[in-house]
Amino acid sequence: MTVAIVGIGLIGGSLAISLKESGLATRVIGIDASQANLDKAVRRRLIDEDLSLAEGLSHADTIVLATPMDAMLNLLPKILDAIRPDQTLVDVGSTKEKMLDKVKHHPNRSRFVACHPMAGTEFSGPEAAVPNLFAGKTCVIVDAEDSAPDAVDTAKRIFGSAGMKFTHLGRSAHDLHCAYVSHISHIASFALALTVLEKEKDEQRIFELASSGFGSTVRLAKSSADMWVPIFRQNRDHVLDVLDEHIEQLSRFRTQLIKHDFAGFHARIERANQIEKILK
Amino acid sequence: MTVAIVGIGLIGGSLAISLKESGLATRVIGIDASQANLDKAVRRRLIDEDLSLAEGLSHADTIVLATPMDAMLNLLPKILDAIRPDQTLVDVGSTKEKMLDKVKHHPNRSRFVACHPMAGTEFSGPEAAVPNLFAGKTCVIVDAEDSAPDAVDTAKRIFGSAGMKFTHLGRSAHDLHCAYVSHISHIASFALALTVLEKEKDEQRIFELASSGFGSTVRLAKSSADMWVPIFRQNRDHVLDVLDEHIEQLSRFRTQLIKHDFAGFHARIERANQIEKILK
Repeated sequence: MTVAIVGIGLIGGSLAISLKESGLATRVIGIDASQANLDKAVRRRLIDEDLSLAEGLSHADTIVLATPMDAMLNLLPKILDAIRPDQTLVDVGSTKEKMLDKVKHHPNRSRFVACHPMAGTEFSGPEAAVPNLFAGKTCVIVDAEDSAPDAVDTAKRIFGSAGMKFTHLGRSAHDLHCAYVSHISHIASFALALTVLEKEKDEQRIFELASSGFGSTVRLAKSSADMWVPIFRQNRDHVLDVLDEHIEQLSRFRTQLIKHDFAGFHARIERANQIEKILK
Repeated sequence: MTVAIVGIGLIGGSLAISLKESGLATRVIGIDASQANLDKAVRRRLIDEDLSLAEGLSHADTIVLATPMDAMLNLLPKILDAIRPDQTLVDVGSTKEKMLDKVKHHPNRSRFVACHPMAGTEFSGPEAAVPNLFAGKTCVIVDAEDSAPDAVDTAKRIFGSAGMKFTHLGRSAHDLHCAYVSHISHIASFALALTVLEKEKDEQRIFELASSGFGSTVRLAKSSADMWVPIFRQNRDHVLDVLDEHIEQLSRFRTQLIKHDFAGFHARIERANQIEKILK
């Protein structure tokens, strides 16, 4: 199968590696707004060739949309306008409601399968692409009933060949769950980095003292603003709800410290420890 | 040298491994309030034998105090009461002001070296002890001028043999820096776990969807309440200051979401990205 990947970054590039490794893609075409990214992707042999959007679409059996979320909102209807009934379009976007509302009545909607492979790192760009990024992780297929069954099968072959498991969610449930298990982690990590940077002017000290626990908690604070701001914009309402809850949880710890209520503090840590069961 | 380790948990047990591996300790005596911990430590060969506090102290050249912080506050003066001029006591505690205030005028204060090896994991107990926990990490020596020079040398041999580098801080600076680079990370992680546990009643969903980013940010939420509550109690004032700043940083993100100020949000993420320089 010939696969065109629109957006050769961390996710698009890593998927290109997996599609070639599994043998599912015999040819991978790269499409990107940045010629520098395409050149890097060719040099790294992530893609076989780079083409314009129009040319790439015409040659592909399957198109993977893997740009930042704002570009997706613009590209999705354009690609659907041009898609043929024998082609399938999948995306890898982190939010779904805005995007799916936009193409709800598009005549070619059924050729599109909304997918969210739950995998990533704090790095971005084609240089961040790695093998096995998706192995063992979950791919959410969103509003599958609005896609043609053969298109859903193609989506499952694409992400299944990269080692992913599948789960199904509606668009609103997807965006809410992702606010909880992904988006709030990033905001918490950005805020923690800012907390330390604002107060710890003596940066050499942080460097000396920061132990692995701190590094783990702020790892996501290295994540790209260009990638994340569109996600927060498109999932604003859910993210606000979750952020309110998070500030409330921190405020309760604050109140317990103020009142010297260390028994209550202990009980809430033990409750937090239950996250272990979920994460294994 | 014969080393007595009081508190055979993650830190005490890991130090026992390193002291034996380097050959610095020819004999390691374990002392612990829990006989079950001592039995585990003997079975794992972390220690050569377990003894009572009085017996262990009388046989040791160097004593390492590695219990939770509340037990340290009680044990430190007792051990100093019994210490001989040829013996050295070091601790591994995460907060220093309360402890050092308590023994400020003790006649044997100079035999004690206040140390904080900046290393750990989210696990606890002798079963959590691992080799190389300390290698390449920093050990803070606190108020070194109050310790005898030969005692400081012994402390440096102990932690140096485990591969640690050294830095010096006063007690108040130490506690403030640790509130920033360690204690707030734990509170943020506990609060994030609670945020998700409160709202995500569908725990199977979290399990399926949680990607590695979430796992990294909540890793510290698995940490022991028994170990951490005494740290928060003893470093309450600094932790409150840092927690206020952290809630303020999160509230600013909240305000930016409410006002749709995504340019401002973007700028603050880019500022947070600067943590990368510090963490490499």
